[in-house]
Amino acid sequence: MRPRLIAVSLSLAVAASANANEGMWMPSQLPEIAAELREAGFEGDPADLADLTRAPMNAVVRVGGGTGAFVSGEGLVLTNHHVAFGVIQYNSSADRDLIGEGFIAGQRGDELPANPDFRVRVTTGFDRITDRILADARGKRGRDYFDAVDAASKSAVAECEQVPGRRCSVANMNYGTDFYLVTQLELRDIRLVYAPPDAIGSYGGEIDNFMWPRHSGDFTLLRAYVAPDGSPADHSPANVPYVPPAHLQVATSPVASGDFAMLAGYPGTTYRHRTASEFAEQVESTLPERADLYRSLIDTIEAAIGSDPAAKVSYASTLASLENGLKRATGELEGLRRSDAVAGRRADEQAMLDWLAAHADNEATRQDIEALEGVLDGARASRERDQVLGALRRFPQLFASALRLQRLALERGKPDAEREAGYQQRDEALIEGGLRQVQRRYAEDVEKAVMVHLLERHAALPDAQRVPELEAVFGGSADQIRTRVDALYAGTALDAEDERLRMFGAAPAEVAGSDDPLLQAAARLQPALLRLEDEEKQRDGELLRLRPSYMSALIGHRESQGQPVYPDANSTLRVSYGQVSTMDPRDGVRYLPLTTVEGIMEKHTGEAPFDAPLRLREAIAAGDFGPTADPALGTQTVNMMTNLDTTGGNSGSPVLDARGALVGLNFDSNWEAVSASWKFDPRYKRAIHVDMRYMRWLMDKVYPAPHLLEEMNLPVEGPSMAPAAR
Amino acid sequence: MRPRLIAVSLSLAVAASANANEGMWMPSQLPEIAAELREAGFEGDPADLADLTRAPMNAVVRVGGGTGAFVSGEGLVLTNHHVAFGVIQYNSSADRDLIGEGFIAGQRGDELPANPDFRVRVTTGFDRITDRILADARGKRGRDYFDAVDAASKSAVAECEQVPGRRCSVANMNYGTDFYLVTQLELRDIRLVYAPPDAIGSYGGEIDNFMWPRHSGDFTLLRAYVAPDGSPADHSPANVPYVPPAHLQVATSPVASGDFAMLAGYPGTTYRHRTASEFAEQVESTLPERADLYRSLIDTIEAAIGSDPAAKVSYASTLASLENGLKRATGELEGLRRSDAVAGRRADEQAMLDWLAAHADNEATRQDIEALEGVLDGARASRERDQVLGALRRFPQLFASALRLQRLALERGKPDAEREAGYQQRDEALIEGGLRQVQRRYAEDVEKAVMVHLLERHAALPDAQRVPELEAVFGGSADQIRTRVDALYAGTALDAEDERLRMFGAAPAEVAGSDDPLLQAAARLQPALLRLEDEEKQRDGELLRLRPSYMSALIGHRESQGQPVYPDANSTLRVSYGQVSTMDPRDGVRYLPLTTVEGIMEKHTGEAPFDAPLRLREAIAAGDFGPTADPALGTQTVNMMTNLDTTGGNSGSPVLDARGALVGLNFDSNWEAVSASWKFDPRYKRAIHVDMRYMRWLMDKVYPAPHLLEEMNLPVEGPSMAPAAR
Repeated sequence: MRPRLIAVSLSLAVAASANANEGMWMPSQLPEIAAELREAGFEGDPADLADLTRAPMNAVVRVGGGTGAFVSGEGLVLTNHHVAFGVIQYNSSADRDLIGEGFIAGQRGDELPANPDFRVRVTTGFDRITDRILADARGKRGRDYFDAVDAASKSAVAECEQVPGRRCSVANMNYGTDFYLVTQLELRDIRLVYAPPDAIGSYGGEIDNFMWPRHSGDFTLLRAYVAPDGSPADHSPANVPYVPPAHLQVATSPVASGDFAMLAGYPGTTYRHRTASEFAEQVESTLPERADLYRSLIDTIEAAIGSDPAAKVSYASTLASLENGLKRATGELEGLRRSDAVAGRRADEQAMLDWLAAHADNEATRQDIEALEGVLDGARASRERDQVLGALRRFPQLFASALRLQRLALERGKPDAEREAGYQQRDEALIEGGLRQVQRRYAEDVEKAVMVHLLERHAALPDAQRVPELEAVFGGSADQIRTRVDALYAGTALDAEDERLRMFGAAPAEVAGSDDPLLQAAARLQPALLRLEDEEKQRDGELLRLRPSYMSALIGHRESQGQPVYPDANSTLRVSYGQVSTMDPRDGVRYLPLTTVEGIMEKHTGEAPFDAPLRLREAIAAGDFGPTADPALGTQTVNMMTNLDTTGGNSGSPVLDARGALVGLNFDSNWEAVSASWKFDPRYKRAIHVDMRYMRWLMDKVYPAPHLLEEMNLPVEGPSMAPAAR
Repeated sequence: MRPRLIAVSLSLAVAASANANEGMWMPSQLPEIAAELREAGFEGDPADLADLTRAPMNAVVRVGGGTGAFVSGEGLVLTNHHVAFGVIQYNSSADRDLIGEGFIAGQRGDELPANPDFRVRVTTGFDRITDRILADARGKRGRDYFDAVDAASKSAVAECEQVPGRRCSVANMNYGTDFYLVTQLELRDIRLVYAPPDAIGSYGGEIDNFMWPRHSGDFTLLRAYVAPDGSPADHSPANVPYVPPAHLQVATSPVASGDFAMLAGYPGTTYRHRTASEFAEQVESTLPERADLYRSLIDTIEAAIGSDPAAKVSYASTLASLENGLKRATGELEGLRRSDAVAGRRADEQAMLDWLAAHADNEATRQDIEALEGVLDGARASRERDQVLGALRRFPQLFASALRLQRLALERGKPDAEREAGYQQRDEALIEGGLRQVQRRYAEDVEKAVMVHLLERHAALPDAQRVPELEAVFGGSADQIRTRVDALYAGTALDAEDERLRMFGAAPAEVAGSDDPLLQAAARLQPALLRLEDEEKQRDGELLRLRPSYMSALIGHRESQGQPVYPDANSTLRVSYGQVSTMDPRDGVRYLPLTTVEGIMEKHTGEAPFDAPLRLREAIAAGDFGPTADPALGTQTVNMMTNLDTTGGNSGSPVLDARGALVGLNFDSNWEAVSASWKFDPRYKRAIHVDMRYMRWLMDKVYPAPHLLEEMNLPVEGPSMAPAAR
């Protein structure tokens, strides 16, 4: 036998590089991982990043449903075009198509007010209040534990919000282990400053969504205004630009593969520290069942639409949403299987349990973990039922309206503070809006088909999962279900908007006693729904009580290996770090980390979503990229890919280089990373950003706004040719 | 204005790198481009490659319809699995599935004889005989010129083939500029030595065809045998392995991106030196019209098949062939447009004409080029008609059989040497075979629909293009066509194999005078077809006479710029050189030049064509790659991509490294290169090879054949575990 050249085990090779850049760190954790940050290439002092209420972290703000950052000392906020889309839409009209043509405010007075409910929130406090939140809960169980936490949280928020202009919330960190009071300054006068045409801002649209290579100029500039005294205020011509406590500087140096990158933002929800049994359930049951349900709903709706053009229009968005949900469920399932997530989590958990067993004084923790598994098993026993009921409350518009009206009637009988979340006075406008929108998404035959399909699914469940009240109202056989659904829809008046709004305005007793057959059905079902809700809160209370033991074991075990643990994402400010990075989606194929304007031309078909504006195409053809051209590629870059750890909510997150300069604006992930909310797989997890040089080029050469570049302290060269066409 | 960092014009950047490795060089041209070869990385002496009848070039041989190479001193020939597929199939039976299971001859006596018509040809002579071929043609025009060249070629071949065991042909180089007599030793006793299972040899099948990344073990080893006295002989147990004049050594060193690579083989046909008007016609008319015709034939056939399962089976291969033709036409069109081939060729030709005009004594050449354009225009005038007639002679099986039988009857009345090519005695077995096969691809209703569709297309042609005889037989209106086609097919007996074979054996007069309606129709059409054939030969003669002037201008112009010209491919031995190379198919995506066994696992679904054998999967999982592992990738490579210039016919071509060692076996091109027969675009033209290390690993560790590795002077390590399963 000759000596072997190479005999690397593949699994070892993968393990060695695993999780190098996994982590959505709380800023306060960064000093703890200072060595790793420096090794990754960060040139600043990690201690400077530790406090999210101080610079530079307080330059990162909540913008609408996403993230953004101050980029000038005069309140200029950079976020995604898709995060600010509502603001652009609000200012668009048939005469003035800001969506299609984009917008540049030539001077302050031209800046356009956002829709009045649009908010920018600056975090001013982040205080651990675990003892306060749990004081009354300790020693309790189930629903009592849940209610105690809920009441303490509501009280802390109410107290905090005594100060005008403040928005407060309680963040649950590590599944009930810790609670933080988040205090935010809520800026209410937000104005539109600069937006590229939609054909640039969302170039590639749904087709390119989740895809790499990408070519979107998904950015928009807003400005926050306050009252002359500096306090948050509603829109007024007298308001002045807000002076932020800090702002970020857009970079003027180039970016290349392998460069350090860091991102701050508000990631929504991840499940990485869920138990191995929850991982298994997700892969083996939840996702396949969801895919099956969505597929069958798509088939049912398409069959019921037939060739009816009006029904086709009404259900277009429902079908798109189901298709998208199906695609995501399939992609997540595929990703979790590819990464062998269940086996990985199981081995990790077993190592944790072994470690726990090897140390004394852990009896209570071990018992809690055992009890936790019991509660999760209990939830699993009704998983299929919960899925069907969830769909029944979501997809049939009239039926869901009836349920909502009955519940609202019930809740209106209580003091506002005791009402169920979602049915408080502050929620009523939203409910009313929903009742108005029903018509746009409704066709009687289609809704009846959906109802019948879901009720038949319910009827096919095992005895223990079926809800007796649902059978009492709709019957149990296919014939009964069809007959009764037909009768309900033949008799109801809720298909008229006027009637729905009349009921919205009616006295609770009138709603509860209505003889409308759908409202009657909803009234008969309400006790069952309340019973199930109570069961769920019992369970949630137990989970809230028991999970901290699981988390303490997980954190203890990891720390024993020298690995700090970041909490699962919960919409609080987090930092992730890594590199500008290639990705090999499959053997023999490499995605490069920078795309260029040539790719815009390659994709351009002249039809949306690949309809690059003439002015952009002319500028690309002219090749006048000036100081924003990439020195290595010799052309203008567009988007950038990194291996940063992100999830939904990170839209608009600023991406910083080793010296803290703003090099990118996060706006999407890659398709292969759709399973990353459960499992971070370093081979496949990537984040997609706008290369700030593309923004600078557009603002300098294509749709010029030299005054804004100057405000951001950026070089201005100006276009070499007169822009002839948009 | 600030100074610009970069202002590279994109078109300049492309132009600078254009055509660096374009060229299918005659070996005799290599000393001429010695400097370029060395600059590209070749470490040998280009003069050693100049004579294709001497080592190492004479190790490269014709194998079946492709290329191969001797790889041992005992007649071992390496070629593609798909080139040797007929040999494997010939030896397969229900009892012994060599296709599915592969084959290893344990010793010489186990080597299995190929089908008797399978040939390996070793080139022994390559002599310029231009004067002899053109002696009688000079001064003639049109058909006379054509016939003179034809007669001189036939005479040279006949004289050459006086020596037994020789196969001779005349190669037309640069479109009639030069003629070469190619003398080959024809080896007739070829045996199967080693073949991997089909699931390895054609892993990925039609789905991966033309695609990168690729994972095929598309190789097979054969052995050539001769009589004990060394002369070519039919198969006999007494025969002995042929001792080739030279053989190649399989490399034992690794391969990496950027390494020099060189390939020798027999590329079939390219059109790169066609005129600008021919380029324009191809892009603007021929390809779009072909795509339109194929699309309409597919629609016609599918509609006629309806839900008839038998017809579906009968037309499966016709439909597959049409789909493939449509795909290729579309891909070629897309590629030629993407590369802006017409404009490029037009500018190049204009520069040539300008150069010609600036030099004296070119009057005759200029007149010839003008006359050439006239002849091409003439051909264009009947392009649509020729396309419809071509389809009529190809797709309807019974109608084509009737035409063939009538033509055969006519030709049989002449001395064999004067018969039309394809109808000589040596061709009759092929004609008979074709007549037998008709049934497998025929269903009456479908064929009638195809006939009607094509005749309607003919009827819709402009007056000048329609063939009066065709209208006389089938009528001109849709009704007439349908009625007469129905009548012909109702009355013919040619749908019976017996009857077709009876007519094949019948006396010419009986066929000509047959009262079978299809044979009668064919007889009435024959004079028209002969007339059109004569027109075509007139034209071909003129093209043969005039194109050399165009080529001399093209060559002169290029040489004035210091650029040698390779002749368009014509199935003679050529050499191309370049590098192991990545390809960027689109912005942001890079194809890597080496694929690995991990890709086999990624693609594996358990269903053909992605059904990797268990034994292979176990070997991959075991990771025992020994000396064939790639040192940089740390795993086993499978396929390799280069930027070498290839076309159909290069299947099985050996790929050599800078020192002449055999590193790869060519087997395919990439999809983006489908237009390369007209235009070599360096950004997109790539060739796909089996990495010889994959062959070595399979033969060492997976389906071991240590005796063959030793015969090829290659290291043997042996499998680390007993192969438990195939």
